[in-house]
Amino acid sequence: MSDPNGFDHLDRLVRVRVAMSENDIDALLLSVGADLPYLTGYEAMPLERLTMAVIRRHGEPVLVVPELEAPRVERKPGVFSVRAWGETEDPLRIVADAMGEARRAAIGEATWSRFLLALQTLRPEVEFETAGPLVASLRVCKDPREIELLRRAGAAADRVVERLRDEPFGGRSERELAQATAAMTVEEGHDSAAFTIVAAGPNGASPHHEAGDRVIEAGDAVIIDFGGRVGSYCSDTTRCFHVGPPTAAYAEAYEVLGIAQQAAVEAVLPGIEAQAIDRAARRVISDAGYGDFFIHRTGHGIGLDLHEEPYIVEGNDLALAEGMTFSIEPGIYIPGEFGMRIEDIVVVGAGGAVRLNRSSRDLAIVE
Amino acid sequence: MSDPNGFDHLDRLVRVRVAMSENDIDALLLSVGADLPYLTGYEAMPLERLTMAVIRRHGEPVLVVPELEAPRVERKPGVFSVRAWGETEDPLRIVADAMGEARRAAIGEATWSRFLLALQTLRPEVEFETAGPLVASLRVCKDPREIELLRRAGAAADRVVERLRDEPFGGRSERELAQATAAMTVEEGHDSAAFTIVAAGPNGASPHHEAGDRVIEAGDAVIIDFGGRVGSYCSDTTRCFHVGPPTAAYAEAYEVLGIAQQAAVEAVLPGIEAQAIDRAARRVISDAGYGDFFIHRTGHGIGLDLHEEPYIVEGNDLALAEGMTFSIEPGIYIPGEFGMRIEDIVVVGAGGAVRLNRSSRDLAIVE
Repeated sequence: MSDPNGFDHLDRLVRVRVAMSENDIDALLLSVGADLPYLTGYEAMPLERLTMAVIRRHGEPVLVVPELEAPRVERKPGVFSVRAWGETEDPLRIVADAMGEARRAAIGEATWSRFLLALQTLRPEVEFETAGPLVASLRVCKDPREIELLRRAGAAADRVVERLRDEPFGGRSERELAQATAAMTVEEGHDSAAFTIVAAGPNGASPHHEAGDRVIEAGDAVIIDFGGRVGSYCSDTTRCFHVGPPTAAYAEAYEVLGIAQQAAVEAVLPGIEAQAIDRAARRVISDAGYGDFFIHRTGHGIGLDLHEEPYIVEGNDLALAEGMTFSIEPGIYIPGEFGMRIEDIVVVGAGGAVRLNRSSRDLAIVE
Repeated sequence: MSDPNGFDHLDRLVRVRVAMSENDIDALLLSVGADLPYLTGYEAMPLERLTMAVIRRHGEPVLVVPELEAPRVERKPGVFSVRAWGETEDPLRIVADAMGEARRAAIGEATWSRFLLALQTLRPEVEFETAGPLVASLRVCKDPREIELLRRAGAAADRVVERLRDEPFGGRSERELAQATAAMTVEEGHDSAAFTIVAAGPNGASPHHEAGDRVIEAGDAVIIDFGGRVGSYCSDTTRCFHVGPPTAAYAEAYEVLGIAQQAAVEAVLPGIEAQAIDRAARRVISDAGYGDFFIHRTGHGIGLDLHEEPYIVEGNDLALAEGMTFSIEPGIYIPGEFGMRIEDIVVVGAGGAVRLNRSSRDLAIVE
């Protein structure tokens, strides 16, 4: 039961059932999000018609799917059977029945609350909890095939960065440059572009800025943070550009940022807590006096989801292990002036972090 | 407190509080999805960091937002205040506190179940229900400004259709034609393309087919169903194309489909139940012997969401009213052979349906 990427869904089903047993979960209910394709190869459409897999401890899982989407489902006997529901049926009734004698159910974390509320009404005796940690326990360490897809995605992103270093910036709007970056993301080998942040000048101080009409000018610092997907696995990298030479204030902060990012990468080792990586970057930035301007965690896991475990944040005492993949992306944001962020994806190896992004981290001086 | 489209969020806030009062709801909790921008002008990012507006019956609503996204939020005093949460804070604790003495809370229907489960744990005495119907009661009838945006989106989509009728089809892959259609969707006046279904030959029998590598050949029927957004409002139209002349079987079914779509459009009138429109289309198709091949409802409301109330489906006894906008899109799907669907958006006027799509519904014979 393999998919085009060669993943063995039957093996994953066995492993998730072990996790269900360990956590005393009788039924696992998965809808939109990456847990469902991870376990079955099928991804639910994020629409109002419910798609939901019901996985019990034994027996063939059931994929409850809208009748009009049933032709899209690649059949995988053993992994799941299909129960197509017609437009005048209630799919939640079908799910509630398929849960059988379940007393404890785990439901996909991004499942619409509307569906959870309906299931709580239909099965008031069932205790529901979020399925996130349970499936994350499988997903957090990537196998070699997954790492290969992440490596290909990272390499494709690196090629985009190298092209961007030769692009003209001045006179183009953020939106125009974002569109060009998204096009390069596909040209360089991603199946699709996922997101593109282009933030120029003071907009750079907004970490999740949406590319807009601002025209890039001489003297602007520009942050580009983008990613795409290769075989459903994500890339995500950030580099900094400057139209003409930077000010001394910018250059000083950028040097600190580079040291901080390197320190975090070097802190990675199996057995180290996730929060230790955050502390390694934050210490450098705080010691240099920029602590108040580093307003987000140092990183996030990456795989089928752009953001997933392990989160590299104070308070996360999860021990890193071989095969975990995450971003290391400290930033410094000075409101009204500029922002900067350097981001690489790394995989935890026996000897420490291996970067999946290898494009230059030097500030790119552009025209 | 108006946004670029001129919407009055303070007025909407007053009206949603009337609905809350009528439904005995003390707190309205909105996160991802269109309800939040409808009421506040701000759209939550669909990521794991919680964004949630807490709207109580009195007092200024609070928008709880990740600190790193706070710079993106356009401030709207009176409509909401902003509570930015740092990476080591628990945003759900902030929301639970902001709910105050609430005993009954309505939560946005697409809010992640993970967040609902956490709130149920933090506030076990609160009764939660879905906010969908409550906010839909405001959103379902569009005001003239909203209709104007839907009209512009529909006209832009019509221009794409007219261009497609002159395109070569044979020898191009579904994916290639989908990319070209998405590009035209933007060129003809949408802010962005939202989705593009191109389904050729037997793939047309899968209503939600994802455009793939299949190369379009002579003799193929091709369904193109696409849409984009203008000022956040959606277009959605479907037309049928045929590479060379169709078979007699196809032509006969297509004639039936056109009559069914027209019958449904003509059945629209204020006061008529939504399900009556579905029946009007279904009767024509069933009487002609294709009833088993019309495997979905006749339509869906459209506005800020691509799919919203009113759903044009058997069992929905909602009375149509002036200003409601929805698709009318019957289809016939013969497994292994072909599919066909004709879709227009209509607005309910005093005298009946006004089509917002006016491109030719005649079968387009292409090369």
